Amino acid sequence: MKTPKLYAVIMAGGRGTRFWPLSRNSRPKQLLKIIGDTTMLQMTVDRLRKVKFVEDIYVVSGPDLAQIIGSEIDGISEENIIIEPSGKNTAPCIGLAAQHLLKRDPEPVMGVFPSDHLIVGHRPFSGALRIARDLAVSDHHLVTFGVVPSSPHTGYGYIQFDKQIELSEGKAFRVKTFAEKPTPRVAQRFLKSGDFLWNSGMFVWRAVSFMDAMEHLMPEHFRVLVEIGDTIGKRNYLSTLNDKWSFLSPESLDYGILEHAENICVVQAEFEWSDVASWNSYYDVLSRNGDGNVVRGDGIIVEGKGNLIYSTDKLTAVVGLDNVAVVNTPDATLVVSRDRAEEIKKVVDLLKKEGRDELL
Amino acid sequence: MKTPKLYAVIMAGGRGTRFWPLSRNSRPKQLLKIIGDTTMLQMTVDRLRKVKFVEDIYVVSGPDLAQIIGSEIDGISEENIIIEPSGKNTAPCIGLAAQHLLKRDPEPVMGVFPSDHLIVGHRPFSGALRIARDLAVSDHHLVTFGVVPSSPHTGYGYIQFDKQIELSEGKAFRVKTFAEKPTPRVAQRFLKSGDFLWNSGMFVWRAVSFMDAMEHLMPEHFRVLVEIGDTIGKRNYLSTLNDKWSFLSPESLDYGILEHAENICVVQAEFEWSDVASWNSYYDVLSRNGDGNVVRGDGIIVEGKGNLIYSTDKLTAVVGLDNVAVVNTPDATLVVSRDRAEEIKKVVDLLKKEGRDELL
Repeated sequence: MKTPKLYAVIMAGGRGTRFWPLSRNSRPKQLLKIIGDTTMLQMTVDRLRKVKFVEDIYVVSGPDLAQIIGSEIDGISEENIIIEPSGKNTAPCIGLAAQHLLKRDPEPVMGVFPSDHLIVGHRPFSGALRIARDLAVSDHHLVTFGVVPSSPHTGYGYIQFDKQIELSEGKAFRVKTFAEKPTPRVAQRFLKSGDFLWNSGMFVWRAVSFMDAMEHLMPEHFRVLVEIGDTIGKRNYLSTLNDKWSFLSPESLDYGILEHAENICVVQAEFEWSDVASWNSYYDVLSRNGDGNVVRGDGIIVEGKGNLIYSTDKLTAVVGLDNVAVVNTPDATLVVSRDRAEEIKKVVDLLKKEGRDELL
Repeated sequence: MKTPKLYAVIMAGGRGTRFWPLSRNSRPKQLLKIIGDTTMLQMTVDRLRKVKFVEDIYVVSGPDLAQIIGSEIDGISEENIIIEPSGKNTAPCIGLAAQHLLKRDPEPVMGVFPSDHLIVGHRPFSGALRIARDLAVSDHHLVTFGVVPSSPHTGYGYIQFDKQIELSEGKAFRVKTFAEKPTPRVAQRFLKSGDFLWNSGMFVWRAVSFMDAMEHLMPEHFRVLVEIGDTIGKRNYLSTLNDKWSFLSPESLDYGILEHAENICVVQAEFEWSDVASWNSYYDVLSRNGDGNVVRGDGIIVEGKGNLIYSTDKLTAVVGLDNVAVVNTPDATLVVSRDRAEEIKKVVDLLKKEGRDELL
């Protein structure tokens, strides 16, 4: 029997407001070159292109970003950009992509990937993908990827694993539960217990398995997505998509499917991974000097430890402060305590409220 | 007997590096509009012009600042700008001014004023000046002004006073000692003792009294300054000044004269005063909102207390931090813990060392 083909679907519709002021509506985090010389999305595409058994790569994004993605990202042709008319969270996004794959191939395996995570280690990444594909094909599993926690991180979701699945190489487990971002105390307990992994937000399954789960758990969404799928390649596709999509309620993959589905397993990742979700986790993945300071761009740090300066603009000096992130862009400067980096959303919300769209 | 005339001498040669990045070599603190709509120097000039018995106002400054002072400061004519060829600290500066006054008037009283301090209260200021002038004239006192301490400030010099001098109005004392910037513990003791005042850095004396003290305590400086003084109004003034001035050793008024002179008294100031010497003391003189935050320019503070944002440039957001000062100018950004504000000198020194003159 021929192994079904694996298609990569990159979800690139996010805004990444936690990277404000560097990230903006027109230039969200996945389109920033914050690590190395290429954008996070380009790094994701390149990573998947290097995996030999990935048949093709699709990117799902909003109408406003489709053009810039098409013109700036190497290795993405326009027909591989799937446009979601508006953000409806992850479940509808993945369902739409599944419909497209099913139009192209009756038996596709789909890998779902965030567009803006950092992964270090090609071989373990490729190896984990192969294991996941085989599990998805052989046992119709919905496969997740879990990272062995190195700290009681409170910014990640956790996967509690159960019985190990017998494999010739690598490690995979049945999933017992998904746990949302824990409190520091709960995170300590997770870490100590040894049977929790970080949820990396990447998934592999047969498109048919996913749609089956959706039919069972989100029947209304299923019905609409199949209706949309029926028009793919036809003249009424766009009008149908725009019409029907607007009525879909937003739903996350986790709430909508994963937390209720049977037959979920987790492949233990051997690669290094970070979601680089905030300036603080960005700081965490960079190499620091002896005082724990990081300077990107023109910066001076005097009498301070554990600071991050990221300046695309001009000289930035930090004096007598510890554990602060300073981000300097041509039209806005952010100064934030690293351990409060999540709260910059409040600044973005305030700017929205004040109608200062030029800064969003 | 006719009361001798009081001439105000404003010392405007300082660099005010502690106000970097707003202050620069070409635009030192006294030329900044940090409080209100006029420069600190203009405020000083205006304050003195409002005092009826001030006969005329002189400004002493370096050659590089003379032009901008002449062109930008209202109420200063070019002949009232005394140029010191280079910075030699306060004692030679005041000696040079004394020589100029003695050429104009055989019996001048001189008031010496910093160019960049904040004083609130015209009547008490004017009243203190009158008392000082009378003490300087009647008893040939060297008169200082002391401010009743409201806190154990470690950034000010202190004056310990002795026996009160009998006056019809106001308060003045003989001076016992001058104390340099104290440690926090010593400052607490000074405050508690009740016989210490902050040294405001303003002085009044007969020019002759000052030169007499200099002749006694700094004879070499005295000799050179008299030689320079002899050429004032003559064709060889500038060449003599430039020649002789370069050989003078720098000396502060405090070390050179005040700490050793007899016949020093202090007038107790009833006006509000601050030397506004750093971003921290700048913060102290501003009015704060309920969280103790101050925003000048375009700024947002979220989840933080006791912060200062001063932006001449662009939106500046502070998140999750307390007691931080952020100063944003078009070509440099400073982020400093308010209680470490003195240490920004280290940044300026580093920039000097790196030859980044455009930022100095």
